[in-house]
Amino acid sequence: MKPVLASSSVLSQLGRRAAMPTITRLMKMALEQPGLLSLAAGFTDNATLPVEALTEAVRALAARAGEPEFLQYGTNQGRPSLRRQLAARLTATEPKLDAAAMEKQMLITNGSQQALYLAMQTLCDPGDIVLVDRPSYFVFLEMLAGLGVRAVSLPTDADGRLDAAALDDRLTELSRRGEAERIKAVYFISYFSNPSARSLTEAEKNVLAEVLLRHGLVVPAVEDAAYRELYFDQPEDARSILSLKAWREFPKLYLSTLTKPFASGLKTGWGVCTDAPWLAAMLHVKGHHDFGTANFNQAICEWVLENGVFDAHVKNLRSVYAAKMRVLHAALENAGLHAGGWRWAQPGGGLYLWLEAPARLDTGMESAFCRACLAAGVIYVPGELCFADEVPRNFIRLSFGVLGAGELQEAGRRFAAVAGSGA
Amino acid sequence: MKPVLASSSVLSQLGRRAAMPTITRLMKMALEQPGLLSLAAGFTDNATLPVEALTEAVRALAARAGEPEFLQYGTNQGRPSLRRQLAARLTATEPKLDAAAMEKQMLITNGSQQALYLAMQTLCDPGDIVLVDRPSYFVFLEMLAGLGVRAVSLPTDADGRLDAAALDDRLTELSRRGEAERIKAVYFISYFSNPSARSLTEAEKNVLAEVLLRHGLVVPAVEDAAYRELYFDQPEDARSILSLKAWREFPKLYLSTLTKPFASGLKTGWGVCTDAPWLAAMLHVKGHHDFGTANFNQAICEWVLENGVFDAHVKNLRSVYAAKMRVLHAALENAGLHAGGWRWAQPGGGLYLWLEAPARLDTGMESAFCRACLAAGVIYVPGELCFADEVPRNFIRLSFGVLGAGELQEAGRRFAAVAGSGA
Repeated sequence: MKPVLASSSVLSQLGRRAAMPTITRLMKMALEQPGLLSLAAGFTDNATLPVEALTEAVRALAARAGEPEFLQYGTNQGRPSLRRQLAARLTATEPKLDAAAMEKQMLITNGSQQALYLAMQTLCDPGDIVLVDRPSYFVFLEMLAGLGVRAVSLPTDADGRLDAAALDDRLTELSRRGEAERIKAVYFISYFSNPSARSLTEAEKNVLAEVLLRHGLVVPAVEDAAYRELYFDQPEDARSILSLKAWREFPKLYLSTLTKPFASGLKTGWGVCTDAPWLAAMLHVKGHHDFGTANFNQAICEWVLENGVFDAHVKNLRSVYAAKMRVLHAALENAGLHAGGWRWAQPGGGLYLWLEAPARLDTGMESAFCRACLAAGVIYVPGELCFADEVPRNFIRLSFGVLGAGELQEAGRRFAAVAGSGA
Repeated sequence: MKPVLASSSVLSQLGRRAAMPTITRLMKMALEQPGLLSLAAGFTDNATLPVEALTEAVRALAARAGEPEFLQYGTNQGRPSLRRQLAARLTATEPKLDAAAMEKQMLITNGSQQALYLAMQTLCDPGDIVLVDRPSYFVFLEMLAGLGVRAVSLPTDADGRLDAAALDDRLTELSRRGEAERIKAVYFISYFSNPSARSLTEAEKNVLAEVLLRHGLVVPAVEDAAYRELYFDQPEDARSILSLKAWREFPKLYLSTLTKPFASGLKTGWGVCTDAPWLAAMLHVKGHHDFGTANFNQAICEWVLENGVFDAHVKNLRSVYAAKMRVLHAALENAGLHAGGWRWAQPGGGLYLWLEAPARLDTGMESAFCRACLAAGVIYVPGELCFADEVPRNFIRLSFGVLGAGELQEAGRRFAAVAGSGA
């Protein structure tokens, strides 16, 4: 008999669908061109990384009396005391929530990314639909594509706010085509969004729930609050959907991370899921992925939360990122980009400026503009990656996360030079 | 319109298939009965955990000149220098392997468990078949069930050795039923196996390849070497399938872990995949899972390997586990279990004794024997969980990993008392 040749023909449907993540392509580009300044990566700032705090945490854990359980396997769901603290923090912000219930509803994950993956794996079969914000997190959109799931945008108006009437029409249209029953979830980043830097108001969240209810779509809702702690001057005052009456009937997953506001290298995220069968399914699948996020990392997170180290760090981080945002903003502003027809808002938190270029300008990965930026030594995330449908070509995500102030100025200068040249 | 109620009806096929992992059930049992001695968990020994080494590693990383990149995001595939060291170690054991090629073929994962999950996700659709050793790793079998994949045993003879003639028959039978094309992979734990503590000889590995080739089944092969470093007196001298000529044509994934032989709390595993499209697919899906294992943990592993700390630790661990194995063995032996018709071999490595009870004795999770053990304050892993098909009820996996010598003696005494009473 003839042997089957080793090739992609041996792969599963999922294996064949998988494409190289853009994040990998962008990192390769950065590595291949030394001197390139990256406004692309949503990384945190090396200079802010809590080396002292980490060393102190490990020393303290090591000095504890008793057995070094922090180096042992942990549980699949995550350390009880870490879950308790995260629940208590959320209750401090949204007092009507029940901390004891949330501790039980919480799972600790390998960054919030794994919580997203588990959520989609347990809800969606290939061919299903997920409603997503517009623009949305491009890594999430690529994950959906990898799972064979179709993303459909929640329509927005000219100001980027949820357009309830247009959503009504879209859902009616999906229903007319017999596709409404394929809608398995709704996903949005509600605080200082990646990429738009916008936050959803309570009114917007409520309207979204009302429109979905009107269409009988009490589908699981995933609220991604990864950047909620990373406000600049004051927290966004909108409560999460966990607290909002309009969302009471919906199965909800609220998720966030200790990676972005503390140390990316720890890759520790978490989610609170209000629906028991859904939570159980996610935990069972996590049992198959890895049967528990690294216990050592969880113990460190637990210690820095317990000892106020996390809060002190994130407080400092806020002013650092606020200052860096202003540097990048000023570099673009001073180079005359506003006058050249570019539009962006100064955000109140997060890691991103979301730029709208003049309508005729294509900023896509394969565009002349993108190549000119690369040649000038600067990269960004093309906005086209962040849309599920009706993709505009003239948006750009710039991150002020990674670079220091001096480099940000230079990167902004390079970027603005290309933008100003009308490339 | 009537809202859909929050219930398991919202779940995907995968979400609905997921069942509570046995590992979770066993941990719950242990938590619910204080004083219970666990011969079940494949955990490592708290007393051996490398607290000093970990503290030293973190201190050394923190003291490095330059930016603290070890707290930043890493790459999806894993730290190059960690991959380089792991490849070099493997080459030191199997000199014909190409270290430079292996560094490129390697991915770092959240424990070896994630490598297994990625492998199966990218190879198997629901309804597909994976050939597994007999007995096999029960967490792997449950993962396959979760993915809707059917496990079919590689037949063994009375001594537990691969039975080539029986395998021939089984493959012929699968072919006759038109199911041979659903066979997507073969999986086996080749060094001090979990649960059987047996190692495969080169001859056995070669025979397996020959039978598969004879049936035209050049399917991806997954060799799980999680316990290879955990030999007692001398390493198992069989080379891996990466080196064996008989396996040359097969797409191969060889995987192992730094969790078992060092610190379970770090959850860091790795795999070498010889097939480019398969590796690419696994990396792409990993990009969706988490876009990279915690960089901090990888940096620690890198440091302890680089500085000989890992080798010193595992060297010590070998004698610790060898001694504990002898304690448990002696406790059973001295209680007269051999005379009572129980059979087991003293293994040359790993964490387990694999016991065959008298044929009439049911040791399953719901058996009177299991309940009697629980009542006596000791738990074990029922062997029935470790078989894909033709499940015998009279096997038991005992782990000497977790308990100290005194507790092992007591646990062995409790277990033997139940076994000797003919319950």
